[in-house]
Amino acid sequence: MTMTQRTVYLGFLGCGNIGGGVYHLLERMQDDLAVRFGLRFVVKKALVKSIAAARKDIPAEVYTESAEDIFGDPEISVVCEFMGGAEPAATFMAEALRRGKHVVTANKVAFANHWDRLQEAADAGHAGLYYEASVGGVIPIIRTMTEAMEADRVSEVMGIINGTTNYILTRMSREVSSYASVLADAQKLGLAEPNPSADVEGTDAACKIAILASLAFHGRVRVDSVYTEGITKVTVEDIAFGREMGYTLKLLAIAKRTAETVEVRVHPTFLPDGHPLARVDGSLNAVFLRGESGKDIMLQGRGAGEEPTATAVVGNILDAVLSSRPARPTFRVTAENAFAITDNWVTGFSIRLRAVDQPGVLSRVSECFAREGVSIATMMQKGAAEDGWVQLVLVTHPTHEQSLRAALAALDNAICVPQSVIRVEE
Amino acid sequence: MTMTQRTVYLGFLGCGNIGGGVYHLLERMQDDLAVRFGLRFVVKKALVKSIAAARKDIPAEVYTESAEDIFGDPEISVVCEFMGGAEPAATFMAEALRRGKHVVTANKVAFANHWDRLQEAADAGHAGLYYEASVGGVIPIIRTMTEAMEADRVSEVMGIINGTTNYILTRMSREVSSYASVLADAQKLGLAEPNPSADVEGTDAACKIAILASLAFHGRVRVDSVYTEGITKVTVEDIAFGREMGYTLKLLAIAKRTAETVEVRVHPTFLPDGHPLARVDGSLNAVFLRGESGKDIMLQGRGAGEEPTATAVVGNILDAVLSSRPARPTFRVTAENAFAITDNWVTGFSIRLRAVDQPGVLSRVSECFAREGVSIATMMQKGAAEDGWVQLVLVTHPTHEQSLRAALAALDNAICVPQSVIRVEE
Repeated sequence: MTMTQRTVYLGFLGCGNIGGGVYHLLERMQDDLAVRFGLRFVVKKALVKSIAAARKDIPAEVYTESAEDIFGDPEISVVCEFMGGAEPAATFMAEALRRGKHVVTANKVAFANHWDRLQEAADAGHAGLYYEASVGGVIPIIRTMTEAMEADRVSEVMGIINGTTNYILTRMSREVSSYASVLADAQKLGLAEPNPSADVEGTDAACKIAILASLAFHGRVRVDSVYTEGITKVTVEDIAFGREMGYTLKLLAIAKRTAETVEVRVHPTFLPDGHPLARVDGSLNAVFLRGESGKDIMLQGRGAGEEPTATAVVGNILDAVLSSRPARPTFRVTAENAFAITDNWVTGFSIRLRAVDQPGVLSRVSECFAREGVSIATMMQKGAAEDGWVQLVLVTHPTHEQSLRAALAALDNAICVPQSVIRVEE
Repeated sequence: MTMTQRTVYLGFLGCGNIGGGVYHLLERMQDDLAVRFGLRFVVKKALVKSIAAARKDIPAEVYTESAEDIFGDPEISVVCEFMGGAEPAATFMAEALRRGKHVVTANKVAFANHWDRLQEAADAGHAGLYYEASVGGVIPIIRTMTEAMEADRVSEVMGIINGTTNYILTRMSREVSSYASVLADAQKLGLAEPNPSADVEGTDAACKIAILASLAFHGRVRVDSVYTEGITKVTVEDIAFGREMGYTLKLLAIAKRTAETVEVRVHPTFLPDGHPLARVDGSLNAVFLRGESGKDIMLQGRGAGEEPTATAVVGNILDAVLSSRPARPTFRVTAENAFAITDNWVTGFSIRLRAVDQPGVLSRVSECFAREGVSIATMMQKGAAEDGWVQLVLVTHPTHEQSLRAALAALDNAICVPQSVIRVEE
């Protein structure tokens, strides 16, 4: 088949690893894209802070230090944002959208925190806003939720959506080494940032699950309404006790809808070893979706990496140019789909605590939980007594978060001191 | 947000399980779809062989015995095909497309065998052809290949895309029961057809991999060029020997591209137990995609079921109505992407054979393989000699299919008789 060539001019906001990856992927795919779609892509301008300091593997004349060279260029129809961080990225994207340019971003922080504003700008400029690369790296999770799952009601999203923490937890459990030492090594290997807090504190995953929950439940879930607990306090003991009980520890991002409420949370979680997500190791990402019509899907793939992320961005560039539907405004809250976000979800808990080694302590501890309506499935003493104290691990039946907290608060610390609390999903 | 309602009239060709599932899913999702998209769906006509014999859970006035009531109705903009089989389904779909109606089908047989014809009709009628439900049930594999993977070069597709055979193999290996007995039980449970040949002979999987390979390599792969071997000859011994060697047996559909050629095959395959596809059990489907840019993705989900399949169909109905891109003509063979399909791929082989129990046999057997350039990785004698014969299992290093066949043909059956040959993928 012969196809007339059409040239598409792109503008880059920022040009770091992902930007460079996209630039070179477009070069490498040039012939394929010409044959398949009759399209030729030219990166016309790339905004950088300093042209002098910009990467040298891209022609210098592409660089500019003035955003207006991109916003004001009528030839540029698609703007790709690679700046990272909330601002000025969000403001720049909004400006590009208002001026009628499609925007493709991999920036979950700017997107999750300024989604409403960006969508308004997109509507005003009749432009498309594309963000596949913002969640799950190569996993086409945004497409799946905005297209494949639209014919169903999503009741649950559960995912491993931060590669760094999954890598750390995987190594901690394989090598039985401490969080601190594995983190230090991951940083040496470049698999964790010099400042790892966004990953290890769970805020990166919180931004991503806020996006997925908004799409799943067709209502806006703000990042600050995501309960967020990172992996910095996870110990090798917790992982080891979990294994004895047949659990694997993962940092899960979870969004569930019940009849009245929605819960959205990120925290270390014990999963039964047989659970598909329990086997997703290293820096892999995976997302499990449950639909009311039995549409259970799991998607798995590399969560990061310059090249794989670049393919997600270029996929979105194609969406924009081939005028596929722009990301649909599925997140707008309307009377019909408004919902309340609860902080009192129901889940299992595994609680490790130190208790005085004397008759009657076990019953007093379990009484204390019983008083709050928390029923205990198993209770084990771990190891022998040390200086009069023993280590206990309890696993509860599914119970309300707030009841469990009340029970912990009511414990008499003279006889029993909680060491760790890890939620359990079946 | 307030949305103006727009009514979309649908025509069904056939109305069995999936058709009924789609009808009821549209009813159940009516309010959601109205709120999300301002769309109201009405099934105006459903073609059935006999109105008298048609399912009673759908209003009788919807039924017709004349296809023209659908083709000739200008109000009907989307036609859903649920007839199954190649004909008359393909002819009916082509007619609907020529008349400008979008077509949504779950019928891999009609689609895989008449794709060119259907695409021409779609082009002629400027209509969209949607077939997400034809492969992988709830797994959004068609979307992923036509959208998410377009920014990459797919080098490999490997999948478990027939739920019935995966269910049978899973139970054979768990219960150590024979193919015949598990099949019979699966038929009792309604998990295998009364006539199971399309599933167990691999032809269902062959249709599906022909579709996926065409999309992956942007060149038309015909069903009859897929090497197809089913599971009817798989024995419990093979599964047991495989397990000893750390392999799980699956019916895999494989499509790979090398520099010059493309290989497309369906056959029982040993996978290392650690391979993600080795853990996909029961009637689950899963597809693993490898992209040249490190875009490795695995998608997993229920491969069948009335309701899940219905969600894939309704997803495509939304695609058609929201005028997303129609399925792109990615399979047209052009000078730039033409390729040759080879029958001489390279893979490992596990060969079970009976050999005369006498000195020198092992060396004569291995000589015979060596002569054809087949190098043996491991060779094990299984069990003691019976009436002078012993059982041997050999596993080869990766070797050419035709070399292995030559070696087997050259074996002296007076001293050694092949019992089974199973390919091994790493």
